[in-house]
Amino acid sequence: MIKMVLIGTGNVANHLYKAFETSKEASFIQVFGRNKKALKSFSKKTATSDSLTKIKEADVYIIAISDDAITSFTEKLPFKNRLVVHTSGTVAMNVLSDKNRKGVFYPLQTFTKNRVVDFSNIPLCIESENASDLKLLQRIGASISEKVEEINSEERKKVHVSAVIVNNFVNHLYFIGSDLLEKNNLSFDLLKPLIFETALKMESHQPKDAQTGPAKRNDLKTIENHLNQLEESPYKDLYIQLTKSIIDTHGEKL
Amino acid sequence: MIKMVLIGTGNVANHLYKAFETSKEASFIQVFGRNKKALKSFSKKTATSDSLTKIKEADVYIIAISDDAITSFTEKLPFKNRLVVHTSGTVAMNVLSDKNRKGVFYPLQTFTKNRVVDFSNIPLCIESENASDLKLLQRIGASISEKVEEINSEERKKVHVSAVIVNNFVNHLYFIGSDLLEKNNLSFDLLKPLIFETALKMESHQPKDAQTGPAKRNDLKTIENHLNQLEESPYKDLYIQLTKSIIDTHGEKL
Repeated sequence: MIKMVLIGTGNVANHLYKAFETSKEASFIQVFGRNKKALKSFSKKTATSDSLTKIKEADVYIIAISDDAITSFTEKLPFKNRLVVHTSGTVAMNVLSDKNRKGVFYPLQTFTKNRVVDFSNIPLCIESENASDLKLLQRIGASISEKVEEINSEERKKVHVSAVIVNNFVNHLYFIGSDLLEKNNLSFDLLKPLIFETALKMESHQPKDAQTGPAKRNDLKTIENHLNQLEESPYKDLYIQLTKSIIDTHGEKL
Repeated sequence: MIKMVLIGTGNVANHLYKAFETSKEASFIQVFGRNKKALKSFSKKTATSDSLTKIKEADVYIIAISDDAITSFTEKLPFKNRLVVHTSGTVAMNVLSDKNRKGVFYPLQTFTKNRVVDFSNIPLCIESENASDLKLLQRIGASISEKVEEINSEERKKVHVSAVIVNNFVNHLYFIGSDLLEKNNLSFDLLKPLIFETALKMESHQPKDAQTGPAKRNDLKTIENHLNQLEESPYKDLYIQLTKSIIDTHGEKL
């Protein structure tokens, strides 16, 4: 069994911890965290510690703390030449302290408290300095997911921008849809089946082929009607920008 | 059994036709269309016609043709005082010809050829000129969906703008995500689990509560990194606009 220590007690740490409970290759022998209350929720099943000097020896240390704290935390680790990986989409591998062997173990998913996620489908983007560590991360990853991908720090930056676009920005469009409806005493529930189908269509279609609507068709009459609807709205400019972007990339030529 | 005639043989017509095959309240006694080849696919199960003079007598005529053709088509119908409804999100009820009783039967969903949709979840937005026709549309709708909603033409305009935002615009963001990845030889498959979870989270969360990411957090460092990634990209302006819009509506105050 590959021995792992989990550093962090937040949302990502919790989801990772649960994912490895059924792994047959790797298990957390300890959870480290500063937040005693959060740490307590792990203590029934696993050793815990809030003291750096008591961190156990393990094959890999998985850091799931806030991006800004990663570098300084790894500088303080009281050991060297062990494999230390972070789980961030935005942080380069080389910001980890030089004292230890470096790696990344980035699960590409949005994690929500109290929502169960199926790790077997989640892409795990791994990176390391040497081939044997990569092999170890591969084994660890494959024990919880069918999609382990070697992605270097430069590639991971592109992946993260794309993830922000299809998650944060998409959610913001859901918000705008809900806001427009609720301001007119209509329920957001009306849009949910459409939201689900728009996403699930990606199972069988490329986004390029799934594009429909007035912008794609250069249907200026409908676009004008919509702009009239949005006359007083804070979202009018965004409607125009998105419509232009669709016309630029997909529009049927007039 | 409520007798219906389906006008049109396109995508929406096909999905409506299939939805009513199992209805115990209403059935299509005829399909009318100009496209003989498309019409033929219905002819094994139902009477078909491409001649206006041969349209059968029915309780309701459901028009699923392109928006621009609706008014002129209804002017040509060779009967009067029957219930004629269209299925469009954008067209006002009153553009239907005055010769017949008017109504709307708008299924709020994106329909894709060869993708099965579960009509029981699809909101059916109905409207009519009088109470008895509304009751009839209610009965017809309830036989295929659990979500029949009375929505007037003004409300339907708002619903349609919102639908374009959460469908067309969201799909465009999927496209941008895929385009950024593929230009870097990375697979769009990486983003799919995130896309699905972002949508499915709406089962349990309001979009306002589900918002995360650098814009929400006012994380200017990550935003700047992303803008550097997009330096040469046609999507940079859109990234800025969407980020601003999130900050304006959700941003934690600096």
